[in-house]
Formats: sequence, C-alpha cells, structure tokens
Amino acid sequence: MEHQSFEKSALNTVKRLPKRGFYDKETIYGILDQHFLCHLSWEDQGQPYLIPTAYGRKEDTLFVHGSSKSRMLVALTDGRPLCMVVTLIDGLVLARSAFHHSMNYRSAVIYGHARELDGDEKMEALRIISDQILPGRWDEVRLPNDIEMKATTALAIEIDTASAKIRTGSPGDDDEDYDLPIWAGVLPVSLTYHHPIPDPAMKHELPEPQSIYSRLIKEKQ
Amino acid sequence: MEHQSFEKSALNTVKRLPKRGFYDKETIYGILDQHFLCHLSWEDQGQPYLIPTAYGRKEDTLFVHGSSKSRMLVALTDGRPLCMVVTLIDGLVLARSAFHHSMNYRSAVIYGHARELDGDEKMEALRIISDQILPGRWDEVRLPNDIEMKATTALAIEIDTASAKIRTGSPGDDDEDYDLPIWAGVLPVSLTYHHPIPDPAMKHELPEPQSIYSRLIKEKQ
Repeated sequence: MEHQSFEKSALNTVKRLPKRGFYDKETIYGILDQHFLCHLSWEDQGQPYLIPTAYGRKEDTLFVHGSSKSRMLVALTDGRPLCMVVTLIDGLVLARSAFHHSMNYRSAVIYGHARELDGDEKMEALRIISDQILPGRWDEVRLPNDIEMKATTALAIEIDTASAKIRTGSPGDDDEDYDLPIWAGVLPVSLTYHHPIPDPAMKHELPEPQSIYSRLIKEKQ
Repeated sequence: MEHQSFEKSALNTVKRLPKRGFYDKETIYGILDQHFLCHLSWEDQGQPYLIPTAYGRKEDTLFVHGSSKSRMLVALTDGRPLCMVVTLIDGLVLARSAFHHSMNYRSAVIYGHARELDGDEKMEALRIISDQILPGRWDEVRLPNDIEMKATTALAIEIDTASAKIRTGSPGDDDEDYDLPIWAGVLPVSLTYHHPIPDPAMKHELPEPQSIYSRLIKEKQ
C-alpha cells in the first residue's frame, strides 16, 4: 500500500514529548477503530466551536452525520478546515512527585475537511457509522426511509494530515524520588459496557440481539 | 447565590432538540465534576486546533495546565476565545429504526477565555486539577519544586457562557415501529476503574494509597 504514513508538517507534528508521536496509518486508524465518539472542532469568524459526535471510518475516509439543521454540519459542508480528535483513556499514572503524574492514553488528531454526501454514498456512510457504534446493529433494524434520509446530513471527512499520541506504562520519576516511601503505579481506566436494559415499551418477548455481544461478553444464564 | 444560570445567546443555545439543553450552573458544573478530561479547541488564522487535556473546576473557574512549551497553552495565554467540552457517555440507545438510534450522554460546552496564573494562584490551580483527577492524591506525593513550577504553565479559564446537553432513557421510536419484532433498549456504558498496577520499580512495600479508593471500590482481601 502507498502512503502508509502522514508526512510530518507544522500542523501535525507532536512537539511536546515527540517520542509519544506517531504518524503511521496503522497506529492512527487503530485508535480510530477503538471508539465511536469523536470531538470535532471548526471555527467561524475567530470563534472556535466544538462538539462530541459519533463517527465511522472506512479506509482513508471518516464519516459523521446528524440532523440537516445541525450547526456543525451546516458549517462543515462548505469544506472549511476541521480538527477531529478521538481519545482513549487507559489509566491514571500515579508518580511519586506531583509533577510526573500523567495519564496513559491513545489519541488521534485528524486535520481535514468535509464534503456532503448524497444517494448511495450517503446511505453507505450511515451504515459505516452504525457499524462503528455497534457492529451488526444495522442488519437488525428498520433502515432509513426517504423522509428520514432527507432529514439527515452525512459528511465524508477527507484527512489532510494526522498524528497519534500515545503514553503507556509505569510512571517515570526523578531518580532521587524512587527512595521516597510513596506508592506509585497505574490505575487502569476503560470504557465498559454493562448489561442491556430492555425498552419497557417492547411489545414482543425477544432475545437480546446479537449485535450487543460485539461489545458485551455473553453472560452465563 | 446570584447568576445561577447562563443567559441564552446565539453562542450557547442548544438549537437541535432544544429540550435536551440546560443552562443552569448546577447541571453544567455537575457534569464537569464527573470527569477530569476535557477537549479544548481554539483557532489560529482560520485553522481550528483541538486537544484532550486534564482540567479542574473551582466555583466559576476552570483550570488547565501543561508544559510551558505546549502549543495549546502558548496560544491560549493571549486570551483568545476557546471552546471546552466535557462529555460523559452513558449508553447506546438501540431503537427499532436506524434513524432513532441515539446515545445517552451528558455534555457540557464552555465558551471562555484563559489567563495565565502565577505564584500561589498557580500552585492552587495545580492542586485543583490534581484533586479533580484523583481526590486526595495531592496530599500523598512530593509537591512541585521551583524548577518544576517554572516548566509548568497553568491557566484559569473564565467562563463567558455555557450550556449542557443531556439525553437519558429509552429509545423513542415512531408509533408504527413499536409493532416490529426488533429488540430495543439501552446498552449502558461507563468509564470504569480497575485494580491498580504497582510500579515494578517501587523500592518499598507499601499499601495502595487511600486516594485510589475515591475511584475504586475497596475489594475484599
């Protein structure tokens, strides 16, 4: 495959702690594929805007969607620069000194621009986003009709450049601080799924759908 | 207390699904107090920038910190407009139709500007951020010395305006879709803490510190 990495530029280069910076697609896309919620920012007349939103990825393209009236989607449709971040928190890093406290995390920063989708491309984008949130769910539900498609905007985000920043492992303290009688280590954190809560309005007795087991370990009855 | 809510303006008004919008400080600060990681955006010559960073809150002021060389902190020190978002994901909302799929979430959007802190105010900001990440940890560790303070920038963020957006509960499907034999409900999600991993480089046998039990339920031995 060509272009396996993004070129380093003033925009995407990780300046602080450059050892934590990654520019290859495998690492960046690997982070993107671990989540379904991004934060997305754009600017309008010097004012930055920022919202959390669901996304999906297919190959080199990211997809977001929402109401056709969404402030974000209306703004981004004109192709202005955007910045999108996906952050996975893996742990609190507890050092002996306050200064060396940190977090274990994996974050991907995308610089790009959006274009509005229509027709089959638009439906495909919605499927990709749905699959990213809960793989398999798209095949279990009633798909969008024409009215719903009209009320929805879907955008493709072309990635201009990107980088990832990753911290893993134990704290790194100053040499002399290792003698201090202070507990140090990592408190792991993760996004965890819990047992599903059926809609009380369900009219049918139905087993839990297969899709949720993409997120949840099947419990013993 | 005065000014218990932020005034609605073009900037902070929740336009899509206005019923999900909240403007009172109790709700907005309640969301801020449930997390320690925000996403923060600013712009420079039409280019939006966005990074994840730790924060703390005390009363009406938010605090962020980092290396004095951080691109974010250098940019924000001049008081330019910033947008900060804290997002709590509570569940995937699985409807009968693809269109009515949603998430349960609580998000707070802050519009404001920053000013750099110095001296006692700066040390206090670092304590507030530390307490937000892991209450009690500040009192267990070696506090910052002069060299470390010099290498650190701390900013106070004054909130110009803010809003929260919240979705809770079951899916809301179209009336006719309730007859479909499709499982509907909520798959709960939360940020979960796991058993701490001691630093293999610890020279002393020490019990786990009290601070971690602010996040972790104490396990039976």
